[in-house]
Amino acid sequence: MEAGALSVEEALERLRRLPYEDIGFAAVDHHRALRTGFPEVILGEGKTVQQIVAIAERLLSGSDRLLVTRVGPETYAALKEKAPDAVYNPTARAVTVDRRTEERRPGVAVVCAGTSDLPVAEEATVTAELMGSQVERMYDVGVAGLHRLLDKLEGLRQANALVVVAGMEGALPSVVAGLVSAPVIAVPTSAGYGASFKGLAPLLAMLTACAAGVAVVNIDNGFGAGYLAAVINRLAWQERRE
Amino acid sequence: MEAGALSVEEALERLRRLPYEDIGFAAVDHHRALRTGFPEVILGEGKTVQQIVAIAERLLSGSDRLLVTRVGPETYAALKEKAPDAVYNPTARAVTVDRRTEERRPGVAVVCAGTSDLPVAEEATVTAELMGSQVERMYDVGVAGLHRLLDKLEGLRQANALVVVAGMEGALPSVVAGLVSAPVIAVPTSAGYGASFKGLAPLLAMLTACAAGVAVVNIDNGFGAGYLAAVINRLAWQERRE
Amino acid sequence: MEAGALSVEEALERLRRLPYEDIGFAAVDHHRALRTGFPEVILGEGKTVQQIVAIAERLLSGSDRLLVTRVGPETYAALKEKAPDAVYNPTARAVTVDRRTEERRPGVAVVCAGTSDLPVAEEATVTAELMGSQVERMYDVGVAGLHRLLDKLEGLRQANALVVVAGMEGALPSVVAGLVSAPVIAVPTSAGYGASFKGLAPLLAMLTACAAGVAVVNIDNGFGAGYLAAVINRLAWQERRE
Amino acid sequence: MEAGALSVEEALERLRRLPYEDIGFAAVDHHRALRTGFPEVILGEGKTVQQIVAIAERLLSGSDRLLVTRVGPETYAALKEKAPDAVYNPTARAVTVDRRTEERRPGVAVVCAGTSDLPVAEEATVTAELMGSQVERMYDVGVAGLHRLLDKLEGLRQANALVVVAGMEGALPSVVAGLVSAPVIAVPTSAGYGASFKGLAPLLAMLTACAAGVAVVNIDNGFGAGYLAAVINRLAWQERRE
Amino acid sequence: MEAGALSVEEALERLRRLPYEDIGFAAVDHHRALRTGFPEVILGEGKTVQQIVAIAERLLSGSDRLLVTRVGPETYAALKEKAPDAVYNPTARAVTVDRRTEERRPGVAVVCAGTSDLPVAEEATVTAELMGSQVERMYDVGVAGLHRLLDKLEGLRQANALVVVAGMEGALPSVVAGLVSAPVIAVPTSAGYGASFKGLAPLLAMLTACAAGVAVVNIDNGFGAGYLAAVINRLAWQERRE
Amino acid sequence: MEAGALSVEEALERLRRLPYEDIGFAAVDHHRALRTGFPEVILGEGKTVQQIVAIAERLLSGSDRLLVTRVGPETYAALKEKAPDAVYNPTARAVTVDRRTEERRPGVAVVCAGTSDLPVAEEATVTAELMGSQVERMYDVGVAGLHRLLDKLEGLRQANALVVVAGMEGALPSVVAGLVSAPVIAVPTSAGYGASFKGLAPLLAMLTACAAGVAVVNIDNGFGAGYLAAVINRLAWQERRE
Amino acid sequence: MEAGALSVEEALERLRRLPYEDIGFAAVDHHRALRTGFPEVILGEGKTVQQIVAIAERLLSGSDRLLVTRVGPETYAALKEKAPDAVYNPTARAVTVDRRTEERRPGVAVVCAGTSDLPVAEEATVTAELMGSQVERMYDVGVAGLHRLLDKLEGLRQANALVVVAGMEGALPSVVAGLVSAPVIAVPTSAGYGASFKGLAPLLAMLTACAAGVAVVNIDNGFGAGYLAAVINRLAWQERRE
Amino acid sequence: MEAGALSVEEALERLRRLPYEDIGFAAVDHHRALRTGFPEVILGEGKTVQQIVAIAERLLSGSDRLLVTRVGPETYAALKEKAPDAVYNPTARAVTVDRRTEERRPGVAVVCAGTSDLPVAEEATVTAELMGSQVERMYDVGVAGLHRLLDKLEGLRQANALVVVAGMEGALPSVVAGLVSAPVIAVPTSAGYGASFKGLAPLLAMLTACAAGVAVVNIDNGFGAGYLAAVINRLAWQERRE
Repeated sequence: MEAGALSVEEALERLRRLPYEDIGFAAVDHHRALRTGFPEVILGEGKTVQQIVAIAERLLSGSDRLLVTRVGPETYAALKEKAPDAVYNPTARAVTVDRRTEERRPGVAVVCAGTSDLPVAEEATVTAELMGSQVERMYDVGVAGLHRLLDKLEGLRQANALVVVAGMEGALPSVVAGLVSAPVIAVPTSAGYGASFKGLAPLLAMLTACAAGVAVVNIDNGFGAGYLAAVINRLAWQERRE
Repeated sequence: MEAGALSVEEALERLRRLPYEDIGFAAVDHHRALRTGFPEVILGEGKTVQQIVAIAERLLSGSDRLLVTRVGPETYAALKEKAPDAVYNPTARAVTVDRRTEERRPGVAVVCAGTSDLPVAEEATVTAELMGSQVERMYDVGVAGLHRLLDKLEGLRQANALVVVAGMEGALPSVVAGLVSAPVIAVPTSAGYGASFKGLAPLLAMLTACAAGVAVVNIDNGFGAGYLAAVINRLAWQERRE
Repeated sequence: MEAGALSVEEALERLRRLPYEDIGFAAVDHHRALRTGFPEVILGEGKTVQQIVAIAERLLSGSDRLLVTRVGPETYAALKEKAPDAVYNPTARAVTVDRRTEERRPGVAVVCAGTSDLPVAEEATVTAELMGSQVERMYDVGVAGLHRLLDKLEGLRQANALVVVAGMEGALPSVVAGLVSAPVIAVPTSAGYGASFKGLAPLLAMLTACAAGVAVVNIDNGFGAGYLAAVINRLAWQERRE
Repeated sequence: MEAGALSVEEALERLRRLPYEDIGFAAVDHHRALRTGFPEVILGEGKTVQQIVAIAERLLSGSDRLLVTRVGPETYAALKEKAPDAVYNPTARAVTVDRRTEERRPGVAVVCAGTSDLPVAEEATVTAELMGSQVERMYDVGVAGLHRLLDKLEGLRQANALVVVAGMEGALPSVVAGLVSAPVIAVPTSAGYGASFKGLAPLLAMLTACAAGVAVVNIDNGFGAGYLAAVINRLAWQERRE
Repeated sequence: MEAGALSVEEALERLRRLPYEDIGFAAVDHHRALRTGFPEVILGEGKTVQQIVAIAERLLSGSDRLLVTRVGPETYAALKEKAPDAVYNPTARAVTVDRRTEERRPGVAVVCAGTSDLPVAEEATVTAELMGSQVERMYDVGVAGLHRLLDKLEGLRQANALVVVAGMEGALPSVVAGLVSAPVIAVPTSAGYGASFKGLAPLLAMLTACAAGVAVVNIDNGFGAGYLAAVINRLAWQERRE
Repeated sequence: MEAGALSVEEALERLRRLPYEDIGFAAVDHHRALRTGFPEVILGEGKTVQQIVAIAERLLSGSDRLLVTRVGPETYAALKEKAPDAVYNPTARAVTVDRRTEERRPGVAVVCAGTSDLPVAEEATVTAELMGSQVERMYDVGVAGLHRLLDKLEGLRQANALVVVAGMEGALPSVVAGLVSAPVIAVPTSAGYGASFKGLAPLLAMLTACAAGVAVVNIDNGFGAGYLAAVINRLAWQERRE
Repeated sequence: MEAGALSVEEALERLRRLPYEDIGFAAVDHHRALRTGFPEVILGEGKTVQQIVAIAERLLSGSDRLLVTRVGPETYAALKEKAPDAVYNPTARAVTVDRRTEERRPGVAVVCAGTSDLPVAEEATVTAELMGSQVERMYDVGVAGLHRLLDKLEGLRQANALVVVAGMEGALPSVVAGLVSAPVIAVPTSAGYGASFKGLAPLLAMLTACAAGVAVVNIDNGFGAGYLAAVINRLAWQERRE
Repeated sequence: MEAGALSVEEALERLRRLPYEDIGFAAVDHHRALRTGFPEVILGEGKTVQQIVAIAERLLSGSDRLLVTRVGPETYAALKEKAPDAVYNPTARAVTVDRRTEERRPGVAVVCAGTSDLPVAEEATVTAELMGSQVERMYDVGVAGLHRLLDKLEGLRQANALVVVAGMEGALPSVVAGLVSAPVIAVPTSAGYGASFKGLAPLLAMLTACAAGVAVVNIDNGFGAGYLAAVINRLAWQERRE
């Protein structure tokens, strides 16, 4: 980020040379880590075990980290054959490989409103951890029992970035954002029934949060929230530019 | 309500004899006060001044109270000619006549999240007052600044029924209901923009409130909420049946 | 409720000291009974049998009542091992434990429109009973056969609070509210097809009910409605404040 | 309709010869009266006074009846210059010309729930009258005051076809259809606010009406309902086929 | 319907005496046939085989006709044990018993756009037949191949009432209503995918049909449409009132 | 399009050199004509007269054609001062400048259902004409009077591309596409009321059209449809590639 | 299309004589190939294997091509018995028979954003190929890795018609349409979760695409898009009319 | 943020002592700057000039910065009388007072797709500037002309946080997030028409963005996006914690 006059020509040339690998049903983007700071992630939903393993193998050939989300134990078993150090988080339904040795840096808190929001919260946690952040979990602290949340106040205020996960009426991000100065990434969940309309209720609620400092990701998108929180935490730890 | 074996025949007979008055464009229901405890209310929206005045005159001929909602000063002026003791609340945009002398009974709190929710909160307040409840106003205590709400905790807990008005993400009823044991009548407002979709966001949020003890009325329906709160407060004060 | 100057400090102190118990995947709120008059309820939907049993054990250690909603017979079997006095209502799909000895107080009516609304009506009934109310059931009295409803008129008018459950067009709460003076808690159900859109049709209908005195809870939320009706009925029986 | 073997060729030939008149911005369909029993109707909304007058002139040249809906007094004034016998119904906002001499036949009832539904009810009435039906008006008989509706029971049961107009929760058609054996044409109106969502609430409610014998037309479509009721009434009076 | 001064008292008295039978989970309405011309119909969806059989037995004790919709062969088998003359239509998924001997009267046409709309069309047909109408089936005549529809023109024009069933874009009712003078009852179906949104697309299309003479019933509600068509056809055959 | 091995480098280089002009509030894209065959178009809606004139001047400096859509006469007047050969189509509310001399090529038909769809149809026509197509207008040929449409059958079948504009139920594109072999570009309009929901009804209907060969553009987007039709017509006239 | 004065009479006569075959549950349209250039296609979804085979047999008796979409291997097996030259594409879930010998003509590109969009892309490809177009596949080139798309720039620009398939945010058609001059047929897919709302998100995005030259088909409608692209490509290769 | 054992008691005590000021219609929160790093902001929409001036005065009494959004020139004039150093940005419709002297720190980029998105983009810019960030504006760089965006590539990559504003199909955030590693705050705008449904289309598109690193704020919420970007940029410049 130390400037220098990177010309338009150079930018385009750089873009042109970006490597990717065509494996038939997918174009594996090896350059993504350079470009965005994190390797391509495999969304397992809607892919066969075979497809997932094939893409994972290609990605691991060029990266020391791997994240596969929304997969069951059988996919984990197949991946473990290729990568014996793969780890499975059954709540998050995510497989990770992490071959790096650097220590994780504190600064991310993942807060969730109820137990049915746990899978999404864990997906966020797994993602942020793999991206190098140490995560403080604060679970089941919904707004109907404020004392449980207020009991965590100190921890909430120490975070550089907070992921706040809630289904039902989605009120938690507003309350949290009113208590802290760091960015709040809100994740609505599809947990709930009736007028929740599969997460529409907390989605709209979070988008219209009366507290400043809240931005929202897709319903159930724990990965996206954890990713963003880790990116923000990384900024807080990076060498300051001059 | 003192039981006794009211037969089906009697019930039907009673129903049959209910008086109403046909004034051409409306069937004025003089019996409503007996049946439901409160005279018919005129929703001014979508009626001409002439229509409102005509219905109001008929109602006042058989009642010592009148409530006209959602009208401007010009309707008030016209009503005042017929009922010099009519009072106008410009924030609520409501006209009231109250010729009774009983004291109002405490027990209703009207809580609102922001200044743009004031018209709806005032409509609830005016209604509950006319129905005999003394109302505690607690305005501008949104969840993004919890200390303002917690400062009112004692008052919140003294109410027999609470009307909680909020636009935006509609989180306030959940938070309040987690702090009190009395019923919370939640009113979503159309204040807000974008993903509020004219009140849909707080409506859905309130319906999916994670705290028990919350029921919801229509968007901007301050009247309905104030009415219900007063009905509940009346129950708390009534002679206990044996 | 007789005032006395409870200071803000005291309120906060009180809030701070509220007990809860962290059992890993959940923060069990033992204080809720004190705060809101009823112990925490377990929504079974989306929890494993093991999670439900674990939370139930913790709750029963500090309460003489338990309510678990939306569970099947296998969860009941597991709970019965821990609490042999547990009772299962298969229509409501609810498990209850009630170790109190006080008599239930009359005043709650649960009215429903059709047989497909029975599970929701029973959930409301079970809840209100566990909270100390004696419930009058009035089932299958939809508006298309008014004589069945009118036949219940006396009973309807004796209630302090009415839960009215309806799917399809959701017209029943409006009709009932026009016949009684007590509060009507309306519950839309997802029974129905096509333009019901999983309960959206009766939800919107109930929110726009032309009769005053109606408030609405979430689609299929029998628990919430029964809870609220019992809270209101409790108000009607409480020692009157001076 | 007197059977006989009308061949496909004849049907097509007949279709081909249908007269229409091109007046630039519109193709006036002179044959519609033959084909469907009623001349083309001008929906005034979204047309200029000049366009309306031009189409009306062409239609009157081939018909003894004219209906122009959703127009203001200025359009009426312009039409009156061309057709001095034109009549304006300001509530319905409709202009009619009726040069026939046959008596209207009884059998259509137009029922509406509240005063804000009057314009739609009147549009239905005007339409059915122009089509030869005598209309029984039953206005302001909403379900929150059932006695007003039950008072009209005899009249309701005498109709061959009923138009039932309601905004808000749209419960009236279900209740009426449960009391009569004739077809009920339900018209949702956009009167109302908040969760009415411009008529969506009564529309969905009417579509999911629990009573058989109800069909629904577009929101505020008084014309369509009056048209259909008159068509059905005509069937009841026609010479019976053998 | 031969007038005479039926007084309000008599109407209420008549209403009061309407017989119904409480069988625990349902209030069987024996009077419906008198009141609306057709016995109560059992919507099988959401009921157990046992419930259906119990209600069916009660209904058959007081009626010579029975209609049970949306049931599978196993329910049919159970019903056949109680009523050996029960008939099952597997496409409509309906069971019927018809012990009357009168001839069916022609005048109802059931038109459908595609083969995936057949179950709904057959439900309409079965219903109208049981109510005494002879039904002309015109299937798979969608608007994308107009010649197939035009080939049926004569038959379309002979009907007193038409049921028009369509999924996808729901254009068929508009086209048919432009060709005939009889009432068109339009039934949107949930057949289709994507932007059909489970029948919303044809529902909205049919409600906004540009041709007069169309009314709409709920998505997939073949029963309701067949019922209404038979009611209208009955009017066309009834003794004319004087 | 004459193939030859255009390398990735060349493609990127070409992309990089594309000219655009920064005029403060807008980046005028002079290269668009080369890239897509048509100069940038100014959507007048939401721009001030001054902004429109400024962008128009810059565009005309590098092009012999100009299209400004959705503007009133005052914008036309201002543009005429800069370009005296500017032409205004008041129905389409579009300003055009056309300084080319080539003859327009036949092959585009613009079909519309009713007079209220005319502005959108004219916007399509003006656009296609400016892009070099000769347009056959076929207006007011809605499906409720099929004979008017069938009368145009020959013309419909001569087109290389058809724009079909309809509001209400949007059935016209399905019917037209069943009669022709050329592509149909369907344009839903916001004309209509109630369940049209500002064009949602015809939009969904057109997307679910049962006839193959239909694609849809945005509600009221006459420009987009005319553009696409002209692009397709241009393909039909171009030198064939080998 | 070579003009000549085809009279209205002739058009109607031609329409009347169109052959179709009634096989009970379906009206097989043999004339469609003449009328629209392609035989009727069987949408397998919602049909039984038996129905599909029966319709396929009738179609193959009059055509040298067959397309059956959305079927599984078991339907393929049954079809293969009747047509041993039938081919199954398991990704597209489509069966084809192609007995023609002409060479396919280049000019159609099918572009898709991610691997979960493959089934829809393949359905488009199979359709366009069967209609005589040679298809260039460009898969997994989503906008989040622009370099993969830009690498295909030359190929994109050589197409006469492009099918662009995308789920998620549906941005790809806008980006592609900004790079080419040929028509873009956009296909939203239901791949995705949460705020995708089963394809609503990309559907709305594509309809509001800021680039001209885009038209949209139904969610997941690969067939419709491939059909339209092939029709457009055919236009580009046809003998030019004079 | 350097930890230290802040006890729960201290946290609550701190919360309790938060100062706010009751001015009747509003509870001005003087403590917000301490708690969240930025003083309370006045959303002008829905407030009277008098209310705005009164709140502004109270805020300025305790802060050296003021932001009033969504107000016209007349509000600015009234504010200028109280604060002569107030500045008005007519595009953003925002009034600011900034009495601090520190230099703004670079790191925020505000990118927008079209000229109709300018008001929202400027609101974001004004907000981020007032919070201490130096903002790089990149306007009118929509995805339909990628070269304009790629020309800004270097600038995009230098930002610590990017606000990306787009209406229509909302594709820009996905494309930008694929090119940079910093967080992207996406703002959908209500600019557009038809299927944009007042910003719903870009809102859903941005929520389902295929690129990681994107979070979304409410439609038209430039303030919220600018606020969040400035908060993130502040993190990147803050003293690193140990």
